[in-house]
Amino acid sequence: MSRMNFTQPIPTLRRDGHAVVILDQTRLPHRVETCRLETLQAACDAIAHMRVRGAPLIGGTAAYGVALALRESTDDAWLAQALQRLSATRPTAVNLHWALGRMRERLAPLPAAERLAAAWAEAEAIQQEDADTCARIGEHGLALLRAHHADATRPLRIMTHCNAGWLATMGAGTALAPVYAAQALGLPLMVWVSETRPRNQGLLTAWELREAGVAHALVADNAAAVLMASGEVDMVITGADRIAANGDTANKVGTCLKALAAVDRGIPFYIAAPRSTVDFDCPNGEAIPIETRSADELLEIDGLDVHGQPARLRLAPADTRVANPAFDVTPARLISGIITEFGVLAPDALHTLRHAAAPR
Amino acid sequence: MSRMNFTQPIPTLRRDGHAVVILDQTRLPHRVETCRLETLQAACDAIAHMRVRGAPLIGGTAAYGVALALRESTDDAWLAQALQRLSATRPTAVNLHWALGRMRERLAPLPAAERLAAAWAEAEAIQQEDADTCARIGEHGLALLRAHHADATRPLRIMTHCNAGWLATMGAGTALAPVYAAQALGLPLMVWVSETRPRNQGLLTAWELREAGVAHALVADNAAAVLMASGEVDMVITGADRIAANGDTANKVGTCLKALAAVDRGIPFYIAAPRSTVDFDCPNGEAIPIETRSADELLEIDGLDVHGQPARLRLAPADTRVANPAFDVTPARLISGIITEFGVLAPDALHTLRHAAAPR
Repeated sequence: MSRMNFTQPIPTLRRDGHAVVILDQTRLPHRVETCRLETLQAACDAIAHMRVRGAPLIGGTAAYGVALALRESTDDAWLAQALQRLSATRPTAVNLHWALGRMRERLAPLPAAERLAAAWAEAEAIQQEDADTCARIGEHGLALLRAHHADATRPLRIMTHCNAGWLATMGAGTALAPVYAAQALGLPLMVWVSETRPRNQGLLTAWELREAGVAHALVADNAAAVLMASGEVDMVITGADRIAANGDTANKVGTCLKALAAVDRGIPFYIAAPRSTVDFDCPNGEAIPIETRSADELLEIDGLDVHGQPARLRLAPADTRVANPAFDVTPARLISGIITEFGVLAPDALHTLRHAAAPR
Repeated sequence: MSRMNFTQPIPTLRRDGHAVVILDQTRLPHRVETCRLETLQAACDAIAHMRVRGAPLIGGTAAYGVALALRESTDDAWLAQALQRLSATRPTAVNLHWALGRMRERLAPLPAAERLAAAWAEAEAIQQEDADTCARIGEHGLALLRAHHADATRPLRIMTHCNAGWLATMGAGTALAPVYAAQALGLPLMVWVSETRPRNQGLLTAWELREAGVAHALVADNAAAVLMASGEVDMVITGADRIAANGDTANKVGTCLKALAAVDRGIPFYIAAPRSTVDFDCPNGEAIPIETRSADELLEIDGLDVHGQPARLRLAPADTRVANPAFDVTPARLISGIITEFGVLAPDALHTLRHAAAPR
């Protein structure tokens, strides 16, 4: 299969000599600013303060963070401390721990003098592999987009949720990789972007689609059912945070509502995610813990004030009782297919990937 | 049936001599302020600027607006002009036109000298009838709440959407009337309040429940499916903007997503609305037009700044393409029952209300 070459409009992360330059996502969508990371501490802060976000990108930043750490010292104790400090930045992020585990396996057996060069090389390999995985997801998803583009007189209309695009990865993204693959080939399409309350990651998705020149429209999360009922949605694609062995899929809260609405109207609902998102030891969705987050995510909101300056508003009294589950689980029975770097799988066929060799 | 006596914590509208005092809902939930209306123009402005909102309350305010107008003159031309100006404030509001039609029928045949007193009396009658209708909806809904309160060891957990409580009426509300009836009798309960993007009417619901001392928690609209899947919701009750003859129900956008999630989990989903909301001439949901509202509702947001002052933030660039349908249609097949002042009806039995006499 030929690789789709997607170039990020602004790199989410790039090596620059002995430093790493990241796009500061805490300033988006209002300000485009980059941060230059030169130390372990800077890498830790960038992850902890969510200047980088999205599981693959967090993993990549952590890997480069090890290389930055080894610039100070390459001895065993400092390597261990660097791995530990990076690991503590976002305790629940799967890719973070996966990437750090890989760095440890690669570096710990080496003589100290060889570790710095190996750390840079391994981080670059992780980055390249993520871009390749995104490209493969894009190619496999592209075939679906073509199949669902039944009416050639109008664009294919794809609904997504949260942000699972190039901003969340070091390549084309997951859910949006097929969109960028189709865009590159001139397939007419547009993307319905859900606001994704309470953290409004849809605003990031709208921004990244604009940067990439893809037609899109922002909608309230609440608008999913009426848009589908009125024939405005051809298919739904979202990312995933964790997929159980039976295909039940945890993703940003609100995903399951879109799946329910899609299935009710006969609209296909797809998940796009790398195999690394599948937890083969987790039997089903009931075994996936749901993170509960701060009430402030509902009670306060960030934006630009009348002077164009970043500001925060309070929406409701600070003592308002709030429940804020961050994820929901979409049952496998609602999912038309799972788009991976290995191909598009039926949810009940996921287990066939457990021991598959990486695609080339 | 004995009437439940619900007293609004703060009257949404009350006559005060030759004036009308309204709760200014544009200041809620951050500020509790009232407005004194003494002229036709003041009444028109209050409706047009949404100082009063909710279909029943808009109708009541318009009726009193006629009385305020007649203080200036009671001749035919001025009465006609007053009706016309009030009618133009919110062109699509059904109750507004119903209330003004009723005022015209009552007042036009009278000698000019008798019209002012009759106008006040008719407006008061409309107000009282709305409170009675709310009370009856509350009583009929209360029986459902008791039936669904299966586990006496914990409160009954009711999810609602938008604002269909006392703030929207001149009584106890529609969807929330059963909640207030149950609260008055000491039934332990709590209400899941959906934020209701893009206009955040859930913040009004949280405020009015707090004022009435009812336990509640604010959630993102996106949280409905995960709360239901984890057994946190016993039933759903929402209001309605327009109900077709077959039971298909238009209500605030997002309502249908809650109905889909509820039905998927075997949770009962009810609509509460007066008979006046049923459009017997509208055969089904496909015949209900869906209003599209301004993009600014998604791109800007109001709240309090760090100094506690009202302020507005921009969330995304002004040229972001937006789709903002204000309502959706919940198919009758998803609705467990419709709670009216006549009783709880199956959606396919609504037609029996068409010629029913008003309950006493």
